[in-house]
Amino acid sequence: MTDTERILLGHGGGGRLSRNLIENEIVTRFGGKGPLAGLPDGARLQLGGETLVFSTDSFVVSPLEFPGGDIGKLAVHGTVNDVSVSGAVPLWLSLALIIEEGLEMNTLRRILDSIRTASEEIGVQVVTGDTKVVARGQCDGIYINTAGIGRAIPGLNTAVNKILPGDAVIASGTLGDHGMAVMAAREKLTLNNALESDTASVHRLVAAVSQWADRVKFMRDPTRGGAAAVLGEIVENSSFGISLREESIPYNPDARAVAEVLGIDLLHVASEGRMLLVCSPDIADSLLQSWKKLPEGAGAAIIGEVTEEAGRVVLETQIGGRRMVDIPQGELLPRIC
Amino acid sequence: MTDTERILLGHGGGGRLSRNLIENEIVTRFGGKGPLAGLPDGARLQLGGETLVFSTDSFVVSPLEFPGGDIGKLAVHGTVNDVSVSGAVPLWLSLALIIEEGLEMNTLRRILDSIRTASEEIGVQVVTGDTKVVARGQCDGIYINTAGIGRAIPGLNTAVNKILPGDAVIASGTLGDHGMAVMAAREKLTLNNALESDTASVHRLVAAVSQWADRVKFMRDPTRGGAAAVLGEIVENSSFGISLREESIPYNPDARAVAEVLGIDLLHVASEGRMLLVCSPDIADSLLQSWKKLPEGAGAAIIGEVTEEAGRVVLETQIGGRRMVDIPQGELLPRIC
Repeated sequence: MTDTERILLGHGGGGRLSRNLIENEIVTRFGGKGPLAGLPDGARLQLGGETLVFSTDSFVVSPLEFPGGDIGKLAVHGTVNDVSVSGAVPLWLSLALIIEEGLEMNTLRRILDSIRTASEEIGVQVVTGDTKVVARGQCDGIYINTAGIGRAIPGLNTAVNKILPGDAVIASGTLGDHGMAVMAAREKLTLNNALESDTASVHRLVAAVSQWADRVKFMRDPTRGGAAAVLGEIVENSSFGISLREESIPYNPDARAVAEVLGIDLLHVASEGRMLLVCSPDIADSLLQSWKKLPEGAGAAIIGEVTEEAGRVVLETQIGGRRMVDIPQGELLPRIC
Repeated sequence: MTDTERILLGHGGGGRLSRNLIENEIVTRFGGKGPLAGLPDGARLQLGGETLVFSTDSFVVSPLEFPGGDIGKLAVHGTVNDVSVSGAVPLWLSLALIIEEGLEMNTLRRILDSIRTASEEIGVQVVTGDTKVVARGQCDGIYINTAGIGRAIPGLNTAVNKILPGDAVIASGTLGDHGMAVMAAREKLTLNNALESDTASVHRLVAAVSQWADRVKFMRDPTRGGAAAVLGEIVENSSFGISLREESIPYNPDARAVAEVLGIDLLHVASEGRMLLVCSPDIADSLLQSWKKLPEGAGAAIIGEVTEEAGRVVLETQIGGRRMVDIPQGELLPRIC
């Protein structure tokens, strides 16, 4: 640590550097034994007889509009998903805009329309907000923050320390579509493919599993850093590992094509409408079937299982090899969400 | 409205342009009869038997550090104050950072220390957060969003439509210090004065008035647009007006000096640790005395009263004249908070 140490793009990448920054600078100051400790997606808070979940995310995606969505849709889904995977029904959102002088009013209107549509579809209400404007060159079009409040679903208290070897690891659909759709749009890749962001709300996927609340051990939406970051974090300092079967992981062929061009591992790429879930093996098939009945879970698959290989995520490749899956270091895909 | 209509700096100034943008683009989409209608500082929400208040603000102040505070302190006070003047005890904050690549880590650390100190002093807890990093030139150092949740104080339900002619208008201290301190720092004005931002929490001022809950009609913290914007908004479309006595309005002589240099009316300038309150005349003196016992209310004063002159805020000047006080139009002081 030197006096001239500076923030790097990689500190925002969702990988190891992000994690270190947050653990060293945020958790040390605000964590303690409070809701921030353990860095869940959302804080669980007691008020009177109620348990709330509270979460926030800022969105800085570039470009503002991309195939399958825009920054507005993302700002609703991102926070709704953080609240949902924390085991709550999302109820209310705040909406704070930082707008660059010169943004076309019609762009703003399309984004706000998109926020309205997304929130109405989910049944979550935008109840408070803020608007700031900064001069040209002090922002890039528009940045959006949403914070969300949900009501905890009784009994659905996931915790990494409930995970046991033999538990199933399930993905709700293809992984990495969002990141690859945004990168393809940003780099203007013309692959003749129709790849779209997977941005969507996972709240119904969460509602569907609440019947097995006591056997669901972990839920998270794999955004920045992808599935590799999410799974890497849960095995870290744990007495178990995870084994993934490559042939079982659902990928979109168009996302694969973009990933290949960019030389990126799709396990490191953000989704914005997917969930990863760990549950007891006895309910894995029933849970999978219940997800498959929903359009947003149609592509769900059991992608692996919890092992006794402590601290490791291993990919069993299609050609019979074994590859370690690491938490990405720094910045693969800046401003992906 | 044309296709090339664009966002102007003035849309973020807290005056008429801001109000129009929010009413035309935000309230039309999200207002309805919900919590956003009427644009209070915070949304009142029912959850089970509890009433929550939920509010959000983004902070883009330049410079990041200024006499009397920094963007971190402001980000705590701003949201705590919005929750407080909505009649609630602030409990929890979210903290979302958008950081520009290259920000010195030590600057970030000072800001985070400042957030910790401010939140500990108030007794509010940072419970969830988010960190994004954008490339150089896509932000200006750091932007911070906080959202806050508070628990409503029973009986303290202010509403503009309870205001009656004869009611007292009270300010909790000198007006405009924050805006002038930031401008003096930004413009590097060397006036040999020790002007500091008034940034502070008003939560104890609110707690102090809760004993007269049924006779407190209105509370707000005069930030962007200053007291003129706050008072202008409450008389607009109302059956009453407000008369201010210039000689009674508390000003800091150093803030006055800066305002004079910049040619700005202090009634248009943001405070970040002050409250304006309207109450029944019978409790005005007692309320004033209770505020004066607190350090943050030491400079409180009754600055005017509600009149029958519908829709108008009038300043009775020290030389015996009468001047209309208007809601500022656009951008006087960009990035003041």
